[in-house]
Amino acid sequence: MPETAPPSDPAAYRPTARTVPTRARERAAYDRELVHALLDEAYICHLGFVRDGAPAVLPTLYGRVGERLYVHGSTGSRPLRMAGGPHGGTEAPGLEVCLTVTHVDGLVLARSAFHHSVNYRSVVVHGIARQVTDTEERRTALDAIVDHVVPGRSHDSRPANDRELAATAVIRLDLDEVSAKVRTGGPNDDPEDTGLPHWAGVVPLARGYDAPVPADDLDPSITLPGYLSVL
Amino acid sequence: MPETAPPSDPAAYRPTARTVPTRARERAAYDRELVHALLDEAYICHLGFVRDGAPAVLPTLYGRVGERLYVHGSTGSRPLRMAGGPHGGTEAPGLEVCLTVTHVDGLVLARSAFHHSVNYRSVVVHGIARQVTDTEERRTALDAIVDHVVPGRSHDSRPANDRELAATAVIRLDLDEVSAKVRTGGPNDDPEDTGLPHWAGVVPLARGYDAPVPADDLDPSITLPGYLSVL
Repeated sequence: MPETAPPSDPAAYRPTARTVPTRARERAAYDRELVHALLDEAYICHLGFVRDGAPAVLPTLYGRVGERLYVHGSTGSRPLRMAGGPHGGTEAPGLEVCLTVTHVDGLVLARSAFHHSVNYRSVVVHGIARQVTDTEERRTALDAIVDHVVPGRSHDSRPANDRELAATAVIRLDLDEVSAKVRTGGPNDDPEDTGLPHWAGVVPLARGYDAPVPADDLDPSITLPGYLSVL
Repeated sequence: MPETAPPSDPAAYRPTARTVPTRARERAAYDRELVHALLDEAYICHLGFVRDGAPAVLPTLYGRVGERLYVHGSTGSRPLRMAGGPHGGTEAPGLEVCLTVTHVDGLVLARSAFHHSVNYRSVVVHGIARQVTDTEERRTALDAIVDHVVPGRSHDSRPANDRELAATAVIRLDLDEVSAKVRTGGPNDDPEDTGLPHWAGVVPLARGYDAPVPADDLDPSITLPGYLSVL
């Protein structure tokens, strides 16, 4: 660790050259609780990796267990194959990834076109994703991914059988080189623009759920579980 | 073009090796109208690029003009600097990017953990982003980015002045190597699982707007413009 490293803060991720933004530094945050909350609130991440020298960015489900993120997929899918041989092994070199999660909270309308923006909360994770080979950890990861979609759901569904486990690759990315970025509040118009005759402010985006739609072949005697009625 | 290339369809993007998925091929689509609609409906994209050999994925605003996407940012921001020198020049090599836009429409709950999923609509664009140097095109791009946030807004805000234009880099990515991927409908449980006693179906995600919040210093005589009251 270089001598200039800040004192270690167990409640925060240590900033690195690539997790300190070149601009709008006041929006950057490294607090673990904030990062965990932003990760848990989203449904999907955007997973970036390099394929034949070119960038690729794919949306995918994920789950979090403490300071570990898990992504799963078919053993035939490209990024999962690249993260190691079939079911990896500790000798697998791993796949360098950038995993990004973003919430858009509002549209920011300024008097000047230049200061238009959105309010957002994002997390960027850099690191090496590696195949998970331990069966117990693979099951834990798959439960976490299901519970990430709907908390509690893994206990109310059939767990993966051996055939499904064999067809599923799981990769793990440790939360180590991590940053959050948050923009809140109204427009930042220049003082000389505040008298212009344009409406300015924020249009908040609302999120919620519509009524659950049962599967066509659902036994009508099966009622909506409690963990869905509270959504 | 290899002899095996399909006949050109002007209404569709031509599939390439990296825009044909290795699995779930039935979800892939290349229809231009669908792609345009998915791009126009989202607020942000996730822009992937390679930096020092490693992937980076950043959320950012964008705008579309026909078959061109535009991203803007500070002339000091990393991806925009990498896309060419200050204000580029046709000799700039450009920046290889992957630009991805994703809508999550619903949570798919199957009887088996394995078949849990989300309904989603995504677009992935591969290509070389290049700095835009033409002043007219730069203004068109900035208008498109503002109008992407709120259609019609560019006509009701102060356009960028020379100082702001000089501080803003604009990069363009042509829609050429493009694919969409769409999952809709209910869970795909295995036939032997449909009798299990777990609720199965889809929880649709609802999107909307909350009441606009005027800026603290907004002149109270300025009423909400029509293009916001219809949101």
